[in-house]
Amino acid sequence: MSEKLIVNFTPTGMIPTKEMTPHVPISVSEIVEDVLKASEIGITMVHLHARDAVNGNPTYKRDTYGKIIEDIRKYNSSLVLCVSLSGRDYSEFEKRADPLFLEGALKPDMGSLTLSSLNFNATASQNSPKMIQDLARTMLENGIVPELEAFDIGMINYAKYLERKGLIEPPYYFNLILGNIACAQANLLNTGIMINDLPKNSFWSLAGIGTAQLKMNSIGIATGGGVRVGIEDNIWYDSKRTKLASNLDFINRIHTIAEANERTIMSSKEFRLRMGLKSGNGEYGRLPINH
Amino acid sequence: MSEKLIVNFTPTGMIPTKEMTPHVPISVSEIVEDVLKASEIGITMVHLHARDAVNGNPTYKRDTYGKIIEDIRKYNSSLVLCVSLSGRDYSEFEKRADPLFLEGALKPDMGSLTLSSLNFNATASQNSPKMIQDLARTMLENGIVPELEAFDIGMINYAKYLERKGLIEPPYYFNLILGNIACAQANLLNTGIMINDLPKNSFWSLAGIGTAQLKMNSIGIATGGGVRVGIEDNIWYDSKRTKLASNLDFINRIHTIAEANERTIMSSKEFRLRMGLKSGNGEYGRLPINH
Repeated sequence: MSEKLIVNFTPTGMIPTKEMTPHVPISVSEIVEDVLKASEIGITMVHLHARDAVNGNPTYKRDTYGKIIEDIRKYNSSLVLCVSLSGRDYSEFEKRADPLFLEGALKPDMGSLTLSSLNFNATASQNSPKMIQDLARTMLENGIVPELEAFDIGMINYAKYLERKGLIEPPYYFNLILGNIACAQANLLNTGIMINDLPKNSFWSLAGIGTAQLKMNSIGIATGGGVRVGIEDNIWYDSKRTKLASNLDFINRIHTIAEANERTIMSSKEFRLRMGLKSGNGEYGRLPINH
Repeated sequence: MSEKLIVNFTPTGMIPTKEMTPHVPISVSEIVEDVLKASEIGITMVHLHARDAVNGNPTYKRDTYGKIIEDIRKYNSSLVLCVSLSGRDYSEFEKRADPLFLEGALKPDMGSLTLSSLNFNATASQNSPKMIQDLARTMLENGIVPELEAFDIGMINYAKYLERKGLIEPPYYFNLILGNIACAQANLLNTGIMINDLPKNSFWSLAGIGTAQLKMNSIGIATGGGVRVGIEDNIWYDSKRTKLASNLDFINRIHTIAEANERTIMSSKEFRLRMGLKSGNGEYGRLPINH
């Protein structure tokens, strides 16, 4: 199998707390440390969530994202960095889009774009059509590539709609996130339909909520896709939930399964070329696309 | 094929206006007239949306629903009547649940329950997990049967979750509504997965948004399912959108296709027996279920 394995590292998320697991990186320095250690083992990109320094709650603020990005790039200037634009805790466009206005050496390469409103276990995540389109337009204008997040099959159809409207441009990168209670389940039929429905020129990674993470990651590796992996989606190392995982435990296991499947990790440099991203090393985000 | 055809008639909805089509029934008397004419041709149940008498906008008010129900039952006391509990225009539980508190001869048999937040073309429809559970619990307590509405595959999984929590009880009735832009599309793979995922003891009808209505209705008839049909989902009679349909045009076409497929319409009386609903004729909603 010639296609390299995209490893999208999701160290923090919005839900895990230190009470849930001591392994979740919350502070800027903890996040940076986990990202750099993971990049030494081998990852392709990082899906970043920032947390407030005082209370550890999710924050949208560009300053916090900027600090994380600055400190990662001091040591690894080519890693592909994606900021979260989640609407789970804040609904105003100005807040959600805030990290997209980081510039120069702090500019993110990508920003997450959830493709519909949906329900999580206990809460609704509202992403109205207008919000999705406004975020997509802002990313297009700022040369930031959307990380397209699909939790159910219809969200892929909505990506095709954004494509027809010219609000997203190929090549695309999708996270297919299976196993959320009110969305597509972590089984082969649901996953297969989602992959089959993707627009042309799409890279994709499989993710699973909770203990479905390992299953979906393994299916991604086996079928030529990528993986999204980290404490954001799952805090347990084993399916019986006896051992809390560190992020590096997860990355090491991905490498074990990848090697046994004859797959090598796609470097950030190769992913930049494939996705039309700038070279890193001081230049970030997408190259201008010729129309 | 022995299973009778459930015809769920949706005359009004929340979107169509007189400007869009003169055929949409808006006032109480217009809605009642369309329902009674359709019931003379042959339908099983009605999915009612009430509109404000002054401006024609959707209203949650039990008084308006009560008038529609009263006037229908004057002439047809056994038709299965379902009220909409949609959150598209109002988000408070007290408003959405208002029609569930109609009693006696005005009590609805069923109430709609959308199984997740989702996006329509231009707006988000927020149905938080708490809202869904509160509406389900209120229906259970009041002996009103949920009309389970699924727009994508994950929503069926959420119905199974409600079942495990004891918030819904079999037999179930599902509307599978295909072709919404950010949800499952009106094709056989998406539809097949949804049908295959339904919990045991489920009746189901297929619906399609816009011109997908005819396609999904025909597939429902061909495969032993039911149909949801009416101006709520589609204002055009033909796929080229040259002729605006009346509700009775739609019902007559369903009868034509049903007859050619050797299927007869399930009567309200039979549907009441199959769903554990009271007899009509003064007694409405669900019979007490023995645990």
